[in-house]
Amino acid sequence: VDEFAFIRERLAPLSRGLPGARMLTDDAATIAPPDGHELVVTADVLVGGVHFRQDDPLDLVAGKALRVNLSDLAAKGAEPLAYLLSIVWPRGLPVEAKSKFVDGLARDQARFGIALLGGDTTAAADHFVVSVIAMGAAPTGSFVPRSGARPGDLVFVTGEIGDAGLEIAASADERHILPPALLGMMASRYLTPEPRTACAQALRGRATAALDVSDGLVADAGHIAETSGVRLAIEAEKIPLSHAGRAWLSLQGDRNAGLATLATGGDDYEILFCGPPDAGEAVARESGVSVTAIGRVEAGEGVVLLNKAGVEIPLVKRGYTHF
Amino acid sequence: VDEFAFIRERLAPLSRGLPGARMLTDDAATIAPPDGHELVVTADVLVGGVHFRQDDPLDLVAGKALRVNLSDLAAKGAEPLAYLLSIVWPRGLPVEAKSKFVDGLARDQARFGIALLGGDTTAAADHFVVSVIAMGAAPTGSFVPRSGARPGDLVFVTGEIGDAGLEIAASADERHILPPALLGMMASRYLTPEPRTACAQALRGRATAALDVSDGLVADAGHIAETSGVRLAIEAEKIPLSHAGRAWLSLQGDRNAGLATLATGGDDYEILFCGPPDAGEAVARESGVSVTAIGRVEAGEGVVLLNKAGVEIPLVKRGYTHF
Repeated sequence: VDEFAFIRERLAPLSRGLPGARMLTDDAATIAPPDGHELVVTADVLVGGVHFRQDDPLDLVAGKALRVNLSDLAAKGAEPLAYLLSIVWPRGLPVEAKSKFVDGLARDQARFGIALLGGDTTAAADHFVVSVIAMGAAPTGSFVPRSGARPGDLVFVTGEIGDAGLEIAASADERHILPPALLGMMASRYLTPEPRTACAQALRGRATAALDVSDGLVADAGHIAETSGVRLAIEAEKIPLSHAGRAWLSLQGDRNAGLATLATGGDDYEILFCGPPDAGEAVARESGVSVTAIGRVEAGEGVVLLNKAGVEIPLVKRGYTHF
Repeated sequence: VDEFAFIRERLAPLSRGLPGARMLTDDAATIAPPDGHELVVTADVLVGGVHFRQDDPLDLVAGKALRVNLSDLAAKGAEPLAYLLSIVWPRGLPVEAKSKFVDGLARDQARFGIALLGGDTTAAADHFVVSVIAMGAAPTGSFVPRSGARPGDLVFVTGEIGDAGLEIAASADERHILPPALLGMMASRYLTPEPRTACAQALRGRATAALDVSDGLVADAGHIAETSGVRLAIEAEKIPLSHAGRAWLSLQGDRNAGLATLATGGDDYEILFCGPPDAGEAVARESGVSVTAIGRVEAGEGVVLLNKAGVEIPLVKRGYTHF
């Protein structure tokens, strides 16, 4: 199948609603933020064999590529607007597989209110690289940075932490014990993260610092600590866990080590944010997303994960790294 | 070397001049076009082993990744503003090699007045993928499309065509005969294309259709023909050639076949545009870039390459395709 035909028939319809995309018939596209707004721009690359597995369903891989970028926009207080997609297809990938990939984009972009502005496609042997740039809009000056956390703020996190990391980290023995429904929960959280787009507006003007949890809760808390010039103290027992996470934790001989695994697994795509004590409840109320206070911001540097007794839990690693 | 240290020490300085890039310390960046302007956005992916060779100097590869995007902006009438860079490094690439790559970015972004807004970096075995999104600014509504060519327009091209394609296509026998200076000219045109940024302003309001020649002159003329719903008749003998191109052509037994090779090689990064008869001279005068009239726009469809006698030259291929 011809590259140009695939773009015209399968990708161009994804640009509907964005006249500046020119139905993907040009070399560039035009876009401008609404009056009084600026563009918020974020990038995430997914590489086959690294960020997704060769046998992951391609519609879900495509959806995840969108969702991880939407998660960044939400954490920064921006509403979704448009995305650019650059793909290196594995040479020889059947058109049905490409089509399934596009199905995933179509489904998720409709759900989250974003459309395709442009991009580039090519092919290379033994490559599968999906590079997404997502653009959102936020009222000028309302961007929620990493850098604004101050001593006295509390640390909050949306949803539940740890399931996606367990999809990778749980051992064969543990999988044998855990009920299929809970294993399915882990797989679903890994393949189909839930970007907290509903939180974007609520975070603006309330959160002093925010980001989405992709590297691991502790590692990402570390990014806020470093950029804000503060210390984040996180109480491990307060980290919100799913049924799957709690069941897995109950299998661990060393509960604190188990909590550390959950707090450093990554791929959660929940929003970690800091703010005054009432910020958590306000964000939860306005967004309808559950929010849990898990710690506090203090003078100092770095992140500590504290056990029930307030003693620091030693960490083997702080998060996931591709390097 | 730590990923974060490399970003902080080597990549962050490339964002100077763009406060919305936040020195690459956040998960997203902010940008807005100047008043009365819109953003013009273009994407190009370069894959090691496909779009560049494993032994090409990495500073030149980085520069080329920028230049091919700047070429798109110029053809669309936009002034350079910012770029996003997503890289998959080959796992284990020495830091000196990464640093040389960054040197190339630094040199070329200073020359063309563009800065780094954000992006993503990761690593994977046997991968080297450079994905650039370039953003330019153009007065709202002044975007130069592919779609506006009309019968009666002339077809123009900047600079010279064919050298970059010869860097790939010239045979060992031909290389043995051609003087080193001319071979160097081909290599240079392949590795270091010259984006015609000086033409951006001159094209606005003058060119009815434009694009940069990347797939090959005939293939790209075909894009204009298709999108504009017209036919482009190109006179092969009028295509501007360099000393290297003319020398290579003189070695060919079949001059018309040689002209066809030059017109379908690709990687030229000159601007092909259509417009009224006086548009070419006006663009040349205002930009200081040489412009040659090479054909005319007619009613009909497709592209024909005509020989001296006005007879169509048969084409084995119309351009370069990665698929």
